[in-house]
Amino acid sequence: MTNNEERQAFYNQTDATGEVYQPHKTLRNTQVASFMRCPQINDFDAADIGIIGIPYDGGLTFQTGARFGPREVRNQSCMMRAINVSTNVEPYELARVGDLGDILLKDIFTHDNAIEEIRQYYQKLAESNVMPLSVGGDHSVTYPILKGLQKRFDQPVALIHFDAHTDTWGEFSGSKFHHGAPFRLACDEGLIDPTKTLQIGIRGGQNIRDGLIYSRDKGMHVITIEDFEDMGWREVCVKIREVVGTSPVYLTFDIDGLDPAYAPGTGTPESGGITMREAQRMLRELRGMNFVGADLVEIAPQIDPTNMTALNGATLLFEMLCLLAEKVGEK
Amino acid sequence: MTNNEERQAFYNQTDATGEVYQPHKTLRNTQVASFMRCPQINDFDAADIGIIGIPYDGGLTFQTGARFGPREVRNQSCMMRAINVSTNVEPYELARVGDLGDILLKDIFTHDNAIEEIRQYYQKLAESNVMPLSVGGDHSVTYPILKGLQKRFDQPVALIHFDAHTDTWGEFSGSKFHHGAPFRLACDEGLIDPTKTLQIGIRGGQNIRDGLIYSRDKGMHVITIEDFEDMGWREVCVKIREVVGTSPVYLTFDIDGLDPAYAPGTGTPESGGITMREAQRMLRELRGMNFVGADLVEIAPQIDPTNMTALNGATLLFEMLCLLAEKVGEK
Amino acid sequence: MTNNEERQAFYNQTDATGEVYQPHKTLRNTQVASFMRCPQINDFDAADIGIIGIPYDGGLTFQTGARFGPREVRNQSCMMRAINVSTNVEPYELARVGDLGDILLKDIFTHDNAIEEIRQYYQKLAESNVMPLSVGGDHSVTYPILKGLQKRFDQPVALIHFDAHTDTWGEFSGSKFHHGAPFRLACDEGLIDPTKTLQIGIRGGQNIRDGLIYSRDKGMHVITIEDFEDMGWREVCVKIREVVGTSPVYLTFDIDGLDPAYAPGTGTPESGGITMREAQRMLRELRGMNFVGADLVEIAPQIDPTNMTALNGATLLFEMLCLLAEKVGEK
Amino acid sequence: MTNNEERQAFYNQTDATGEVYQPHKTLRNTQVASFMRCPQINDFDAADIGIIGIPYDGGLTFQTGARFGPREVRNQSCMMRAINVSTNVEPYELARVGDLGDILLKDIFTHDNAIEEIRQYYQKLAESNVMPLSVGGDHSVTYPILKGLQKRFDQPVALIHFDAHTDTWGEFSGSKFHHGAPFRLACDEGLIDPTKTLQIGIRGGQNIRDGLIYSRDKGMHVITIEDFEDMGWREVCVKIREVVGTSPVYLTFDIDGLDPAYAPGTGTPESGGITMREAQRMLRELRGMNFVGADLVEIAPQIDPTNMTALNGATLLFEMLCLLAEKVGEK
Amino acid sequence: MTNNEERQAFYNQTDATGEVYQPHKTLRNTQVASFMRCPQINDFDAADIGIIGIPYDGGLTFQTGARFGPREVRNQSCMMRAINVSTNVEPYELARVGDLGDILLKDIFTHDNAIEEIRQYYQKLAESNVMPLSVGGDHSVTYPILKGLQKRFDQPVALIHFDAHTDTWGEFSGSKFHHGAPFRLACDEGLIDPTKTLQIGIRGGQNIRDGLIYSRDKGMHVITIEDFEDMGWREVCVKIREVVGTSPVYLTFDIDGLDPAYAPGTGTPESGGITMREAQRMLRELRGMNFVGADLVEIAPQIDPTNMTALNGATLLFEMLCLLAEKVGEK
Amino acid sequence: MTNNEERQAFYNQTDATGEVYQPHKTLRNTQVASFMRCPQINDFDAADIGIIGIPYDGGLTFQTGARFGPREVRNQSCMMRAINVSTNVEPYELARVGDLGDILLKDIFTHDNAIEEIRQYYQKLAESNVMPLSVGGDHSVTYPILKGLQKRFDQPVALIHFDAHTDTWGEFSGSKFHHGAPFRLACDEGLIDPTKTLQIGIRGGQNIRDGLIYSRDKGMHVITIEDFEDMGWREVCVKIREVVGTSPVYLTFDIDGLDPAYAPGTGTPESGGITMREAQRMLRELRGMNFVGADLVEIAPQIDPTNMTALNGATLLFEMLCLLAEKVGEK
Repeated sequence: MTNNEERQAFYNQTDATGEVYQPHKTLRNTQVASFMRCPQINDFDAADIGIIGIPYDGGLTFQTGARFGPREVRNQSCMMRAINVSTNVEPYELARVGDLGDILLKDIFTHDNAIEEIRQYYQKLAESNVMPLSVGGDHSVTYPILKGLQKRFDQPVALIHFDAHTDTWGEFSGSKFHHGAPFRLACDEGLIDPTKTLQIGIRGGQNIRDGLIYSRDKGMHVITIEDFEDMGWREVCVKIREVVGTSPVYLTFDIDGLDPAYAPGTGTPESGGITMREAQRMLRELRGMNFVGADLVEIAPQIDPTNMTALNGATLLFEMLCLLAEKVGEK
Repeated sequence: MTNNEERQAFYNQTDATGEVYQPHKTLRNTQVASFMRCPQINDFDAADIGIIGIPYDGGLTFQTGARFGPREVRNQSCMMRAINVSTNVEPYELARVGDLGDILLKDIFTHDNAIEEIRQYYQKLAESNVMPLSVGGDHSVTYPILKGLQKRFDQPVALIHFDAHTDTWGEFSGSKFHHGAPFRLACDEGLIDPTKTLQIGIRGGQNIRDGLIYSRDKGMHVITIEDFEDMGWREVCVKIREVVGTSPVYLTFDIDGLDPAYAPGTGTPESGGITMREAQRMLRELRGMNFVGADLVEIAPQIDPTNMTALNGATLLFEMLCLLAEKVGEK
Repeated sequence: MTNNEERQAFYNQTDATGEVYQPHKTLRNTQVASFMRCPQINDFDAADIGIIGIPYDGGLTFQTGARFGPREVRNQSCMMRAINVSTNVEPYELARVGDLGDILLKDIFTHDNAIEEIRQYYQKLAESNVMPLSVGGDHSVTYPILKGLQKRFDQPVALIHFDAHTDTWGEFSGSKFHHGAPFRLACDEGLIDPTKTLQIGIRGGQNIRDGLIYSRDKGMHVITIEDFEDMGWREVCVKIREVVGTSPVYLTFDIDGLDPAYAPGTGTPESGGITMREAQRMLRELRGMNFVGADLVEIAPQIDPTNMTALNGATLLFEMLCLLAEKVGEK
Repeated sequence: MTNNEERQAFYNQTDATGEVYQPHKTLRNTQVASFMRCPQINDFDAADIGIIGIPYDGGLTFQTGARFGPREVRNQSCMMRAINVSTNVEPYELARVGDLGDILLKDIFTHDNAIEEIRQYYQKLAESNVMPLSVGGDHSVTYPILKGLQKRFDQPVALIHFDAHTDTWGEFSGSKFHHGAPFRLACDEGLIDPTKTLQIGIRGGQNIRDGLIYSRDKGMHVITIEDFEDMGWREVCVKIREVVGTSPVYLTFDIDGLDPAYAPGTGTPESGGITMREAQRMLRELRGMNFVGADLVEIAPQIDPTNMTALNGATLLFEMLCLLAEKVGEK
Repeated sequence: MTNNEERQAFYNQTDATGEVYQPHKTLRNTQVASFMRCPQINDFDAADIGIIGIPYDGGLTFQTGARFGPREVRNQSCMMRAINVSTNVEPYELARVGDLGDILLKDIFTHDNAIEEIRQYYQKLAESNVMPLSVGGDHSVTYPILKGLQKRFDQPVALIHFDAHTDTWGEFSGSKFHHGAPFRLACDEGLIDPTKTLQIGIRGGQNIRDGLIYSRDKGMHVITIEDFEDMGWREVCVKIREVVGTSPVYLTFDIDGLDPAYAPGTGTPESGGITMREAQRMLRELRGMNFVGADLVEIAPQIDPTNMTALNGATLLFEMLCLLAEKVGEK
Repeated sequence: MTNNEERQAFYNQTDATGEVYQPHKTLRNTQVASFMRCPQINDFDAADIGIIGIPYDGGLTFQTGARFGPREVRNQSCMMRAINVSTNVEPYELARVGDLGDILLKDIFTHDNAIEEIRQYYQKLAESNVMPLSVGGDHSVTYPILKGLQKRFDQPVALIHFDAHTDTWGEFSGSKFHHGAPFRLACDEGLIDPTKTLQIGIRGGQNIRDGLIYSRDKGMHVITIEDFEDMGWREVCVKIREVVGTSPVYLTFDIDGLDPAYAPGTGTPESGGITMREAQRMLRELRGMNFVGADLVEIAPQIDPTNMTALNGATLLFEMLCLLAEKVGEK
């Protein structure tokens, strides 16, 4: 864990007139928009937590545009501040949090290649000490994230997965790597432990039962939106802790887990989802778990005329950042 | 009830290259948008359930555009699938469901004439065996639907009516057939049994108490949004079953029954309505009732920039379809 | 209190053809849009309740446009009617309610001067008998409203304050009068009694704890959104009555107290807020309290593509009007 | 013609604090939005020129919402000022210009009845001395305007008609009074002189040649957009003067005469129309003609997300006002 | 060429009540939206001209969503009619024009595979007699169209190409088949004759000169927007005829050839383009040329809030249809 | 002038994996959005040309939001490339161009103070060698820019000013520094030479003639939009060169100089303005003049749903950058 002085030095910025300023305290509409207004860095070891943009949406099957997710989440994250009043966590007092920029892809026209490039990025990241907090892009990116990070873990990780969809389908339209498949791939390759996996907010019709059957057969804990509503968010959190325990755990939040009233700007919206109040309280209830990384995916700004989806996304990202910062700060 | 082979033959489509495909399994953004991606038919007897567009909004009193409701519900219904995971109903395994196209009106400038044309359409439909699932248009269309179907019933039907408004007002601005009046007309003419009628989600101010007084005087069960909230959706469903019993029952869903956060695109939105989670669970709870038809009305795509209203509408339409398919499948 | 005839005379309008009409009963899309379709007046004593527009947003710190709030609330208030069906209050049977137009500011480029101009307006208003119901503009306007009205009260007033933010911060960006400060100013100057002040719906991160500390140190009752959710709206209302009792009380509703799903069009939206159903039921539960005025602020129509924020705002404004009308009608 | 003092008295307004102000000089976003920020009047004789809203769109055949045209033109007309810098005309120095409010219709569900009500309004207006400048609403309203005004003229009037469509079709969908028919009706009834009628900007495909044939057979001067472009706006204006001469002439501007890039918010937009620079220069070139009235129609604010259509409409309305004011000022 | 009776039979439709109707004469907002409201067919030989949707945008490099182009062009094409008034061409009197539906792709995650699937479709089509008029999708689809059709031609075809970009770049981001490359591929493979190719409307900056150099080196006639403006549309058409002569010629229109004021809804908009008036007049001026097919690409409805891009696209498509119909009608 | 190596080093970026890349050649939707994708710097001397954001709009009188101009121009400038194909200028081969970030204001609530802060920033900048290219913000910022830069000039500078308004009004609403006043202030203080000042595109009504009279009395060359259209852009450019000659000249482009069809997202749009084709060709025609700086102002992204205004703004900014780069490259 870094000390106060190091963190102070990290966050202090200087403008061209020589004025030193703290980016979280400037006017919100000012400056180049970085994630959470954090310093931009290009060295994995320069920060304790690195927020990474993955502006790629080649795994989508319906409405597109998640490739602009990182940009608009950066814009909207200027509404975020330094103190989480609900939990009293102050992430920038616990960790150096930097914006690592976006992954630069060399091949976007063959989905499988792009997936491999993302994997390589996280494999390099895994050689550093930085804790990754990633912003998609479509959900297909979580598989190469987990795959790239694999060497950091000595075991399949637990997974807390908020989503309308289980994302455990098989091959579709010529690829097994699409945005409805990452957790089948991750499970098949031993990256996640299905018995320590919870899929929360699942809903919507299906054309084939393949995904749901896979999840359940493997022992994943599928909490449909009806289960969720009947249990209430508090009991769901009890269940999460019970399933995950102290295992290393990865958190992935597909914004379409939210109801379309809260997240209209997403590729495959499903009516009748989680509200923001529920989502925020659940994330706060997960404090102290053994997080190894997290991501937020599927925000499509082109179809989000009020930017509400990206604002809610940035708000959830801040909660995730607080969870990771407490983990990093423990050290 | 049709057998499997007949249904298979019904749903299989062939493209110009000779390829046979199942429309629910193609990419969502492809093909001419029909309701639920179902085959387009122009013969009442070609299907067990016919989805009918009524692109007419001449009964509106404020914001217009419900005439584009069928078109956008068709577009958004490409997000619907074949299996209702929450209830395990698979409507296309139970019934041939076809898109009957739109009613072609010859006179749209005299509201009363248009109403009569719609009535004639349903009178012809009533001579066939098809179960009608209609998509408006404004709510004035439900009266001629019920009137046209009258010969099918040997009694006034029960009515489950989701709406912000009772739609039992008298003459307004020169016509008794406007979109705030269908259920007064239907009641006065013995098309519905008011003692077996429930109006759910009622709210908003009034300039005259006329409508509410009519509903209550006739014995309709008016469940205001406050009643609804205090009872909870489960108890409301108990009440519905208690009131309707095994009577033949028609279901009409005015999208403005939903809160504007879920349905901004409607002509007379009223703050503080039903959520989608509540609406979906209620509709599923009505399985096994003796349905004779259903409709969805008042979706105004011009004022729905994210298409959320039409998406939620299509989702409710799928639930209604499942209810009707189970009824049809019983036979 | 005025008698029926006076009120009738007040509300009757005549058009250029000599036709007399009641504005609440004409078609909604017609006529110049005044607040609640009420008569426009330019004399404080011509009405019992005056609705006043304050088209000023010079106190904003992020997204702008609340200066168009009065105009769009006027537009959307055409959906409001004469009878509050939920409470049976009929405000136009209790009071002459007029649209007093907008405050005309002479200096909008120096925030402190604009604040002083607003104060002078309410000081003049305080010499009349009219009950003020104001529509902002940003929240900075509530301080000069309270200051201008001060001579009417023989004591600091109680305050019911719905908001995402406590608005008790100190100087920011060169002014102590910005939209995050009105209640610190009001408290420091003895305009409000902090021990009879409730701040409801508070949430969002902070960069400095200054505001929250101020509120709590002064004895204000800060009900965060988590408190609110855990208590439920009914218990919150019990608490409000307990705190305020029969004291003269001012009601201020910042539209960002609502969740962004219900109020996307506001300058500093905070995820996870109050729903419209909760807001409506709370306001209705406050009947019979000793109201001395009310305001609705922070509606920014430029970023509200469906006008839902202004519609919900107009709906809340109608509830506030009913509360004030009952108070006025008591006399 | 009124004198300076009368006009000054007419325009001076007083607010509730007793402050006298000139509405055209207040901040644009302030006050209840009247046409051109002019005083609201309800007496035909109170003004020299009356701007009248006709919030009716029952004659439309495709996209709806022109019923909100008057409201949004009022809103956008706050951008208009007192001096036409291009022509040096100052309309408020020449005439008392008042906002006469909207026509209140009693029957909107039978198009033919609504048309008759509008006719009656203008028949009453024709008994006064006010010059009418009307804002629709759909184009069907121009027929009853001309019909109602008929008694003022001792002859069929000349017509300058900007539009994408000739609006000389016959009966359609059950009515001969729809928005594609006003000038056939007006011609058949001797309200306009077809040989002194110019239709400018005509374009778009046709399903039947009926309208174009009618126009040409009757001797109307149809200037298609191709003619227009080849002639240039200056030569078109020469032609207008040549055709109309000193005859009493009515000007009607359908906003869809403009290209959709300048007027996306209209019911039946046609690609490839008049630009605003062309429209403005043409209107200014018509100074000194013998105008008897004018109207602006078919602005549909619901489908005009930037309000550009209403802004351009308000700008054209100001040019028309200047033309009428010069005529009125002559007297 | 088909005779009148065959065409009549082709266009006549029957609804479920047995009513026969002509689709171009029904109300525009009615019926399932097919291209130009033409009959839907699934047999290449059932029509003389087939309009084909290619809902694929895997070749895009920036803003996405052209996969929804066919759907929204279908919607907006309901504004099109049967008679081209400017040219007096009546396409439905010359040819049976059918909507062939969309190409069903089996592999969308590997761009090169999707391209091959499209090629196979047109190869099959080439075995019939139907004239193809295609609607993309991104511009990468034109290469497989030309490749698939190759067997129909005994020579490289001439090309009239409206666009902001030459689309003759080399490999980019791992594929040579992206939307900036189709005409380089087509030229390299002898599908088009570069000396008979015109690229019209070219503009925008470049990062590498590769594309422009390729075009010019191969002898393509690159008409930049500055050239275009200086020549005027008439002279450009003279040039087109001079270059193409009587050679078989394919017409491809990238909607981004238009200025963003006319086509905001496209993936890579370039400021300062062709106006709709210019585009329409040019297309009409190309009558009588030896067309072998045409396409319209790059319409991205998600970022086209007024649908103006799709409306202008549909309008251009109608002009193209007229050009093809005259060619087909010659036979 | 820097040499090639220095520029190369300046532009090369490295990501966290150690990969070196050239930002103008990455995928457009990637990376934190800086102006023109140029390196972010915080040292005036680190670049030859510095692009500066001024996210301040406190000088506005009507629609607000220009404070978000820099952010959205940064976003949209990702569409810009390295080579100006029309002029063959390659700015990054001529100069190190850096994004200097935004000016950090300490007092935004007193307009006059904010103006002074901006002045101080440019005064510091004037001590370095960097050429400033600024992005507003509202037009009030140009006065403090010119004032701050004054020490660099030994004379009042010439001014090329594109705008709908002369911006030479006197005090308004309590301040002489508002967005309609910068050039009166600049002229009064000898910062600009009015006889070498051109104001191009001027239009719109006026309430007082004050501004226009001032401009003309001082000898400014006011080219109204009618003058502009009659002269044509080429002759206007001849006039500009004639007036300015070789004098040091500052270029200021108010986006509302464009027609609203090209720039709907601006605070005070005026119908009937400059087209993008005209604007681009004019800017290119100004090559070789003695530029000392430039700015682009009044882009209001909140009211620009397609981002067209910011895209056109970024395109004009690139042209300005090329003009400045040629000047810098001369040295």
